[in-house]
Amino acid sequence: MNEEFHFSRITALAGGVGGAKLASGLSQLLGERLTIIVNTGDDFEHLGLRISPDIDTVCYTLAGLSNPETGWGRANETWNALKTISALGGLDWFQLGDQDIGLHLERSYRLNQGQPLSKITQDFCQALKIQSNVIPMSDQEISTWVFTENEELPFQEYFVHQQCQPNVKGFRFEGADDAKPAPGVLEDIAEAEMIVICPSNPWVSIGPILAIPGIFDALMDKQVIAVSPIIGGKAIKGPAAKMYSELGFTPSALAVARQYTDFLSAFILDQIDQKMEKEVQKLGMQTYITDTIMKTNRDRIRLAKEVIEFGERLIKR
Amino acid sequence: MNEEFHFSRITALAGGVGGAKLASGLSQLLGERLTIIVNTGDDFEHLGLRISPDIDTVCYTLAGLSNPETGWGRANETWNALKTISALGGLDWFQLGDQDIGLHLERSYRLNQGQPLSKITQDFCQALKIQSNVIPMSDQEISTWVFTENEELPFQEYFVHQQCQPNVKGFRFEGADDAKPAPGVLEDIAEAEMIVICPSNPWVSIGPILAIPGIFDALMDKQVIAVSPIIGGKAIKGPAAKMYSELGFTPSALAVARQYTDFLSAFILDQIDQKMEKEVQKLGMQTYITDTIMKTNRDRIRLAKEVIEFGERLIKR
Repeated sequence: MNEEFHFSRITALAGGVGGAKLASGLSQLLGERLTIIVNTGDDFEHLGLRISPDIDTVCYTLAGLSNPETGWGRANETWNALKTISALGGLDWFQLGDQDIGLHLERSYRLNQGQPLSKITQDFCQALKIQSNVIPMSDQEISTWVFTENEELPFQEYFVHQQCQPNVKGFRFEGADDAKPAPGVLEDIAEAEMIVICPSNPWVSIGPILAIPGIFDALMDKQVIAVSPIIGGKAIKGPAAKMYSELGFTPSALAVARQYTDFLSAFILDQIDQKMEKEVQKLGMQTYITDTIMKTNRDRIRLAKEVIEFGERLIKR
Repeated sequence: MNEEFHFSRITALAGGVGGAKLASGLSQLLGERLTIIVNTGDDFEHLGLRISPDIDTVCYTLAGLSNPETGWGRANETWNALKTISALGGLDWFQLGDQDIGLHLERSYRLNQGQPLSKITQDFCQALKIQSNVIPMSDQEISTWVFTENEELPFQEYFVHQQCQPNVKGFRFEGADDAKPAPGVLEDIAEAEMIVICPSNPWVSIGPILAIPGIFDALMDKQVIAVSPIIGGKAIKGPAAKMYSELGFTPSALAVARQYTDFLSAFILDQIDQKMEKEVQKLGMQTYITDTIMKTNRDRIRLAKEVIEFGERLIKR
């Protein structure tokens, strides 16, 4: 744990793999001073299991259990349950390892008993010895739907089963309008000295979090810093760049900054996007340029440190 | 497949490990000429999974997939899901291997979709390349409850969690009165030239099958041969002998024969119980003495062959 920072509370918003990497760096520096609010729009039921891909990616990453090659799932995983399901002619398009299934079984069991997802997530984090607070954006079910040219697809159907092939025309976050932020979400945002929007997909990872009534408004008064998930016009992983193109935008760090304009105080761009810095500043944001690619754990910690120190400098101004 | 038998249709009633062994011997000799009606009174829901222990023991044994050391579960099993559940503080008293969980997930998913257990079991048997017909006694849920001195326990709570420690005072097969035999059960009994009651626990494996309206009556006109699950006053496995004692009976092959008197044509005793042969005959049954202990697959086939040949000799008389 690093004690050199002045900030006593930071809250991050995160989705999948990229967001989890920065969250992991922040967590290693801040420990329990960090709260991570995680997208649950990708959550779905599969084979009777309630699966929360982004919560699991964040938790596995923070616990050092994630599979470094895939980015999702666990390291040292076995696949014997799925092989059996496949041999029985069952649904095998969604990859579920045995350890992963164990966690899904336990979560589904508790949800069916009426326990809220936030409490279950908190218990799991404790069991996995995660020091930071991981909170699902809501305890209510919110489902991301993807409008494509021909039909509306549940997110995992689009993302995993159809491998992001269909052209995207828009999104819908079913249930978001009537949902409440999970206990602690608004309080943690209110108490945080800085909000970090992790380098997650703005459309389907950060978008659903912002769609829950109260969260967007809560960000308006805060110092909010985002790290661009688009680097050199591309996403490190996932369909973010493809989505920008299909929705009619040139995929770029600038496009991300524009999307967050309403509440963003500052924006962190990769050095490869230095040429866009002035355009971003014209949106009324402070900027910071660095290497934002996180290949190693050292990268995660280094970027996290730069994000925090940048935030601290901004406050002092 | 052995073609030397005259019988074209045999139906067996079976529960757990001992019954599955004889069923396996019969299946290797008879293939699709054999139907096995299996107890589902032990079925229960655990961690949201619908588990059918006796069906699985029969199917795994017939498919050559069962764990020869435990008698339940699968050979070459891994335990990574259960280890994860345990690490998360979840329910880990019921041993579920990863392959086993795969099957339970697929079964539970299909049941929740409204598919009947008999259809699912048939599909699983086909996937596992089992030639004989395995039919659950009913598609409706029937739950065995165990009366103990102080309370009434669900079967698996008594059997696995409390390891058969409580004194047994009686049984109740919840839902049996209103249940129907699964499709094919009564037809297979009617068409069979011989019914074999496998060496399964008469109280909690065969008892629930007989408790379903129609099945007991269907046996009355048939040639029914039972193989004693009690050998030298003991059960090879499980609490059958202990149950006889606690219910006020001396555990013995004779006690089993008495329990089945109403419908039994003939009874097969182990050679160690030869002294009881005349007492059994006094009940109005034919008898046959042999070595009924099945340690190897050769034993299963040998005993199955003797059972069939004994049945054929009885018909000719």
